[in-house]
Amino acid sequence: MKTNPTHVRKNWWQTHPDDERSHLNEECGLFGVWGHPDAARLTYFGLHALQHRGQEGAGILVNDNGKLNRHRGLGLVTEVFKDEKDLSALTGSSAIGHVRYATAGSADINNIQPFHFDFHDGGLGLAHNGNLTNAQSLRCELERDGAIFSSNSDTEILMHLIRRSHHPEFMGKVKEALNTVHGGFAYLIMTEHSILAALDPNGFRPLSIGKMSNGAIVVASETCAFDVVGATWIQDVEPGEIIEIDDNGIHVDQFTDSTNLTICSMEYIYFARPDSTIHGVNVHTARKRSGRILAREAHIDADIVIGVPNSSLSAASGYAEESGLPYEMGLIKNQYVARTFIQPTQELREQGVRMKLSAVRGVVEGKRVIMVDDSIVRGTTSKRIVRLLKDAGAAEVHVAIASPALKYPCFYGIDIQDRDELIAATHTTDEIRDLIGADSLTYLSQDGLVEAIGHDKLTLAYFDGKYPTPLYDYEEEYLESLAKNEAR
Amino acid sequence: MKTNPTHVRKNWWQTHPDDERSHLNEECGLFGVWGHPDAARLTYFGLHALQHRGQEGAGILVNDNGKLNRHRGLGLVTEVFKDEKDLSALTGSSAIGHVRYATAGSADINNIQPFHFDFHDGGLGLAHNGNLTNAQSLRCELERDGAIFSSNSDTEILMHLIRRSHHPEFMGKVKEALNTVHGGFAYLIMTEHSILAALDPNGFRPLSIGKMSNGAIVVASETCAFDVVGATWIQDVEPGEIIEIDDNGIHVDQFTDSTNLTICSMEYIYFARPDSTIHGVNVHTARKRSGRILAREAHIDADIVIGVPNSSLSAASGYAEESGLPYEMGLIKNQYVARTFIQPTQELREQGVRMKLSAVRGVVEGKRVIMVDDSIVRGTTSKRIVRLLKDAGAAEVHVAIASPALKYPCFYGIDIQDRDELIAATHTTDEIRDLIGADSLTYLSQDGLVEAIGHDKLTLAYFDGKYPTPLYDYEEEYLESLAKNEAR
Amino acid sequence: MKTNPTHVRKNWWQTHPDDERSHLNEECGLFGVWGHPDAARLTYFGLHALQHRGQEGAGILVNDNGKLNRHRGLGLVTEVFKDEKDLSALTGSSAIGHVRYATAGSADINNIQPFHFDFHDGGLGLAHNGNLTNAQSLRCELERDGAIFSSNSDTEILMHLIRRSHHPEFMGKVKEALNTVHGGFAYLIMTEHSILAALDPNGFRPLSIGKMSNGAIVVASETCAFDVVGATWIQDVEPGEIIEIDDNGIHVDQFTDSTNLTICSMEYIYFARPDSTIHGVNVHTARKRSGRILAREAHIDADIVIGVPNSSLSAASGYAEESGLPYEMGLIKNQYVARTFIQPTQELREQGVRMKLSAVRGVVEGKRVIMVDDSIVRGTTSKRIVRLLKDAGAAEVHVAIASPALKYPCFYGIDIQDRDELIAATHTTDEIRDLIGADSLTYLSQDGLVEAIGHDKLTLAYFDGKYPTPLYDYEEEYLESLAKNEAR
Amino acid sequence: MKTNPTHVRKNWWQTHPDDERSHLNEECGLFGVWGHPDAARLTYFGLHALQHRGQEGAGILVNDNGKLNRHRGLGLVTEVFKDEKDLSALTGSSAIGHVRYATAGSADINNIQPFHFDFHDGGLGLAHNGNLTNAQSLRCELERDGAIFSSNSDTEILMHLIRRSHHPEFMGKVKEALNTVHGGFAYLIMTEHSILAALDPNGFRPLSIGKMSNGAIVVASETCAFDVVGATWIQDVEPGEIIEIDDNGIHVDQFTDSTNLTICSMEYIYFARPDSTIHGVNVHTARKRSGRILAREAHIDADIVIGVPNSSLSAASGYAEESGLPYEMGLIKNQYVARTFIQPTQELREQGVRMKLSAVRGVVEGKRVIMVDDSIVRGTTSKRIVRLLKDAGAAEVHVAIASPALKYPCFYGIDIQDRDELIAATHTTDEIRDLIGADSLTYLSQDGLVEAIGHDKLTLAYFDGKYPTPLYDYEEEYLESLAKNEAR
Repeated sequence: MKTNPTHVRKNWWQTHPDDERSHLNEECGLFGVWGHPDAARLTYFGLHALQHRGQEGAGILVNDNGKLNRHRGLGLVTEVFKDEKDLSALTGSSAIGHVRYATAGSADINNIQPFHFDFHDGGLGLAHNGNLTNAQSLRCELERDGAIFSSNSDTEILMHLIRRSHHPEFMGKVKEALNTVHGGFAYLIMTEHSILAALDPNGFRPLSIGKMSNGAIVVASETCAFDVVGATWIQDVEPGEIIEIDDNGIHVDQFTDSTNLTICSMEYIYFARPDSTIHGVNVHTARKRSGRILAREAHIDADIVIGVPNSSLSAASGYAEESGLPYEMGLIKNQYVARTFIQPTQELREQGVRMKLSAVRGVVEGKRVIMVDDSIVRGTTSKRIVRLLKDAGAAEVHVAIASPALKYPCFYGIDIQDRDELIAATHTTDEIRDLIGADSLTYLSQDGLVEAIGHDKLTLAYFDGKYPTPLYDYEEEYLESLAKNEAR
Repeated sequence: MKTNPTHVRKNWWQTHPDDERSHLNEECGLFGVWGHPDAARLTYFGLHALQHRGQEGAGILVNDNGKLNRHRGLGLVTEVFKDEKDLSALTGSSAIGHVRYATAGSADINNIQPFHFDFHDGGLGLAHNGNLTNAQSLRCELERDGAIFSSNSDTEILMHLIRRSHHPEFMGKVKEALNTVHGGFAYLIMTEHSILAALDPNGFRPLSIGKMSNGAIVVASETCAFDVVGATWIQDVEPGEIIEIDDNGIHVDQFTDSTNLTICSMEYIYFARPDSTIHGVNVHTARKRSGRILAREAHIDADIVIGVPNSSLSAASGYAEESGLPYEMGLIKNQYVARTFIQPTQELREQGVRMKLSAVRGVVEGKRVIMVDDSIVRGTTSKRIVRLLKDAGAAEVHVAIASPALKYPCFYGIDIQDRDELIAATHTTDEIRDLIGADSLTYLSQDGLVEAIGHDKLTLAYFDGKYPTPLYDYEEEYLESLAKNEAR
Repeated sequence: MKTNPTHVRKNWWQTHPDDERSHLNEECGLFGVWGHPDAARLTYFGLHALQHRGQEGAGILVNDNGKLNRHRGLGLVTEVFKDEKDLSALTGSSAIGHVRYATAGSADINNIQPFHFDFHDGGLGLAHNGNLTNAQSLRCELERDGAIFSSNSDTEILMHLIRRSHHPEFMGKVKEALNTVHGGFAYLIMTEHSILAALDPNGFRPLSIGKMSNGAIVVASETCAFDVVGATWIQDVEPGEIIEIDDNGIHVDQFTDSTNLTICSMEYIYFARPDSTIHGVNVHTARKRSGRILAREAHIDADIVIGVPNSSLSAASGYAEESGLPYEMGLIKNQYVARTFIQPTQELREQGVRMKLSAVRGVVEGKRVIMVDDSIVRGTTSKRIVRLLKDAGAAEVHVAIASPALKYPCFYGIDIQDRDELIAATHTTDEIRDLIGADSLTYLSQDGLVEAIGHDKLTLAYFDGKYPTPLYDYEEEYLESLAKNEAR
Repeated sequence: MKTNPTHVRKNWWQTHPDDERSHLNEECGLFGVWGHPDAARLTYFGLHALQHRGQEGAGILVNDNGKLNRHRGLGLVTEVFKDEKDLSALTGSSAIGHVRYATAGSADINNIQPFHFDFHDGGLGLAHNGNLTNAQSLRCELERDGAIFSSNSDTEILMHLIRRSHHPEFMGKVKEALNTVHGGFAYLIMTEHSILAALDPNGFRPLSIGKMSNGAIVVASETCAFDVVGATWIQDVEPGEIIEIDDNGIHVDQFTDSTNLTICSMEYIYFARPDSTIHGVNVHTARKRSGRILAREAHIDADIVIGVPNSSLSAASGYAEESGLPYEMGLIKNQYVARTFIQPTQELREQGVRMKLSAVRGVVEGKRVIMVDDSIVRGTTSKRIVRLLKDAGAAEVHVAIASPALKYPCFYGIDIQDRDELIAATHTTDEIRDLIGADSLTYLSQDGLVEAIGHDKLTLAYFDGKYPTPLYDYEEEYLESLAKNEAR
């Protein structure tokens, strides 16, 4: 397909009238099950374990002997499925589910997945994790050809490609469509007879397959969802694979041979849950190792080590053990998180009123503190935490980051820019240290990160700008980020 | 377009997994305004006046200098627009709105109109009242050609036809699409620069245009919506017309010359509001006249005349005046209607527990009562009311119906079958009288109805089976109804 | 008890911080049932029939073998009891229920009845319709003696008096309390073994007892609630009576011999439902008769008669029949009433945007109209309707009121002042006619009203200022109203 | 007051018809502020920091120049105060707030504090943390004397005592009332002119006073609430004190001289937040020290140390550091906690489906694990976690409890029995070890606990049965628990 997105309204569906957000498809969680009488309920528990991958909305689509049925809604899994009947109405022995990433601003129920299509020749379901790099071109092309989209999500594109394919077989249509979309994608497709699981040729997102004691097959974005439902990991979905799961079991196929595993390193660094194992590496263990290596690289003279809860606690304990310094609970995260809070007024904010994080005066007062965090994006959060610690009496605050400096955006499905500027793209480490008010600032080296993770089949472009694929519609944005980094 | 709906799943999208109802597009209300700073608020009041045309859901789409924006929801207009901010967020000087007919069963937000499409080359809105007779064929054809529908409403079809048209001009695309769909339809289309109003070649549904004192143009399914917003009627949309409303005023065009006004007679009989005027005839006046003529035709010996509230009060007062009998309030409708009630148990139902209608013992006790109603569909409601009156002591109950016997279904947008059997299609008048427990049963003659309404540009097929158009996808259903009536 | 309410904060609990309304106990509906396995469900239907007596909130208290249980909430009966389980949880063979009058402003769940008290020596329930004239003095006195009130409702007072009584028997305590409170009151008290129904010595509010076919006893504010549940009226609760209902049936007792039936005439005029019978007189019939007498008294030369829906339709049809003029539907009330609407802006209001009532141009245009209404309170509503009719083309509008002019407030439980000025207290009939823009204004005579109702055991003080009891805490307000009327 | 609770219905208000729970007053959080223009908003943030002390409901009462106003509701602080207007409506420069403990079963809005009383002579507010030991006797006595309670909370009792006191001065009435109630209590009382803070003679619950930079005074159950609003601790409320806070500052008084600080040791062990400081001791530090001492006392041969999140992480890190073993994240708590979950079916539960806690296979597999927890109540949770770890491959699981064995109930405000049996009251340590499936079980010694906390002004009765006060209404329950422990 040729793409020529001229005469397209600027920012078009990425700034939809009903929804001001851009980059809508990023960071989600997938779960599916085939062959269990309680398929929807298992999916509920599986999605709950994947809740950290998306809090905007959730949905479950079941297949009840060929008849598809769905429940979806805005909010957490436990909010969308509030009543027993929300689940018990979803009868059927197979299901796919989805949790969607929460961003600021109003949410639109139409974007909540799985999508459910009810065609004259059968029903189909679709769920997606990732970000397509040629979505805008494809959508534009399809609309010019008469297609009507019902959401402002990239996900629909695949279904339009499948339905318009002239391949005589359904699987052929799907493969054709999978070869047309580019970027990072993990798809679950529910047909009336099977679940299909497909992963992009670089395997940017994790997707694994497990088995339950009764023989049911499960598929999930992270293995932590297997543990919660009592399933055992059996294999990962590999780059370029399309796996068909049905009553005959698992049938592995390829939609392309041109593959190259470069999984997103941010999954290890902060996005995945510590109890998940990705391509054979336990996430907590990788993070703790990154803390150990960071300690060796940093050599900071201090009294105690603390982690920024919750994602940096593993790295902090690794740092503490390697350095021989005590590991302390110097920051407390309020566990009663809500997605929306009433905010303090500007005046109260200046008086130090805060909702989410507290420094423990009894721990940090008078101490030289090493504060371990997983990453710095814009620097504003780090600045707030450093000040929190100093306000609580810390003598020195040394910020130690368990990953290299983030200088380039992610186009494959993680929203690391926070829709704003990456501070390390435009500032030196010394400048950042001063801006956040720290006494020192240390990053883990890129080699240290690879050593901590234990393999190099990783996307490290966020640190060095070397993207493993062409960037299509994002080429311009990439060039801008390159220019910024060069100007530094 | 050729249509060949073989190999289509039986009842397919008309029994959508998420929604068990069929004939989803029937009986709705439209309202639009161009050129008023408070466009959304006016639409809110206009839709409220049209609430009787649909209670399942409502929506308003505004055009704010070319940027379309929408709010919609399930329930009454006052439920969907609860807070001032629901309206105040809809800034813009033009708007279209829709109320959707309430049927039993779960409702789906995706079917609530106006639809809002956000294409790369501009936004469009669409609202529809009526029923297409070739919807199934068209949808099937379109899907085979790669189209994806996002609702189980007929309305979307028009937009797919517009977007796939190869005509170089937008208006040409719209006209082409309007000539492809068949049946009963009134459409409002919002573009970035205008509102389009179009009516099918038979004008099955009413649609009128009015003017406000500030020059704003309004369009509404019934004139009662003009009164409520202080607008004045200026013209009706005529069959086959497509009217463009923009800053230049009203531009009338035709999408076809082959027109023949046969407005649905049920609008006069029970569906429209008594304060509306349809093609020059006030509805209350037509109904009162039908009561007068019925009295002349019926010659029933009785003590009092009562109407079944609320739709039959006009006819009953006409009957009373013509007959010289007192017009009494023998039935009281509980004005605190709710769309969902907790039901009495079977035992309580037998003890006479009822929610909606009460007979007034002090009025009917010992009296020979003429009970005027607008129509009999299945007979079950009439039977309940007759029993109510007899339980309250009525000596005799004579049922007088202010329209002819309903023997054939409507395919143009009114759900007169109640998705069940028409009792008059399979029973004689004497049989029906016995089944409902009345002492006598009289229908208005077909000539009497035409005389009461005052013109004959009417669809009377519900009484005589003579449909003014081919029936396309409903041909089979029509033949079945024909067979039923012949067997009687 | 001596009452000395000096040093009391001005307006104190009648302008409660949480609730700006005054006169909180007015206009409510009571329903009770003893001896039916479905007691709560019957009460639900009974309260629904009494919904016109109060829309702010509703509650049902059941007695399940001596264990009391309750559900209550803000809103209509169908809103408070939304789910089947709301009723099915209320097991037990006896129940009392209450609907509470809706006033503007925020509502407080704590005021919603029945009240439920859980003492160490047993549970009690209490529901009340009416207004006490010595409530403020009693409450003040009780608080000085250590009592703590949990609502800003008068109703609680009775329970404090009962619990503080030193009479050795429970029934003695209740009688003592009933003799301490003054004004208008109908009480239902649920004990663990019975329901008590009591009425004030003047019988200001209606309260009747009925029987179901299975022997269950029901008690209700209006007989329309008997019809809806299939019960038959057996007797009224008479002034000064306290009736005990238990497994032995009905036991009638008196708490005072000093009684004098003077039922509130406004119950007949506009408050009660037309299908209710109060002290032997059907309300619709009384109203129709009032219309007939009004026609005889008024002699207005006109073309048609219309009633203001819904409360004045009976009187209007009586007027039409007596005068020989046609009875027309000249005003339409939107049946989709909601308790809260988004309001038109001032500008829209001037353009004539209205939600609730429409004039039917096709009916009134060019006609001399007699507009029958039940009463005029402040005159603002009448003014609006007259203008509505004239805007729709009425040649003349003659306002005919089916009751005498309202000049004095009600202190026994009906909020006729609308918390504002009674226009007839300060203006002559000619002045009012001009203020509301009518071509003529006629009131029914006081004798005409008594003739229409058919008995004179009525409170007519609203018209002539002759209150049948001392007014206690309202003495000052009464003197003010007297002064106003004299100044006229 | 004499107390003679014979002839009282068994379990009476502690098993209220509307609420099946007993011991309703336990474990709550208090916050108050005097002299800040944003008093309600500060209280919102303060209560959020105290959310761990109660999740059933929350409320804020403000004093706006002598006019009290309140908002309260069921749920978390962020659920009760959802909209900006919930707070902005609470204008005023002083406020008190309360969070209420969540227990199973239905909740009753009437029990949510602060209570608000609106007397003819002024308004009063009241909030309470603790449990009275003579509540049942007092309530019974008061009801016999005519008092009516509006909740099934102990808290109301104090207000009845104040209102019934014959002392001429308000402060005298309050002191008299405080000397009548017994047990554990911290009260905040809002008058029209001041906030009063009072603590029981044993100081069972923490209550501290802080100051903001603008001079405003704050009072809170825990110092973590000071940190969140930017206030500084200035003093604790001491046993037997009643402190008046008004525009003149802080005025300390005593309502009794007979005091003896024995603060509840469970506040340190698991209830308070780690960043709080109680009577000079930081809670995290005390817990970490308890872990260190436990390591010295236990001498377990193992590979890694893990804590049960979140309350045992401090103790676990202390254990790890003292023992030299690695501190690992072997258990992950799902951070998206909801108060209500849809439960797995029995079959799924057996398959290992769990919502809240996961073991990290990559960490514990093949390892000898020391699992540190703060306490064992019934043993069922410990059993589940041990099994979780073994299922994830742990070679050995050694349970180390950072407090002595819980053998006796708390009557002063912490619900440690979980309304069920304390396993250590009836089983030996070896029996418990076997029941929970651990390879070993070690408790911290009582001396070790005192050493860890650093002072002995503690209630340790839960471990040794030596209660510091008479137990009044709980005497019988205490004797039962004594008998159980002796039988062991």
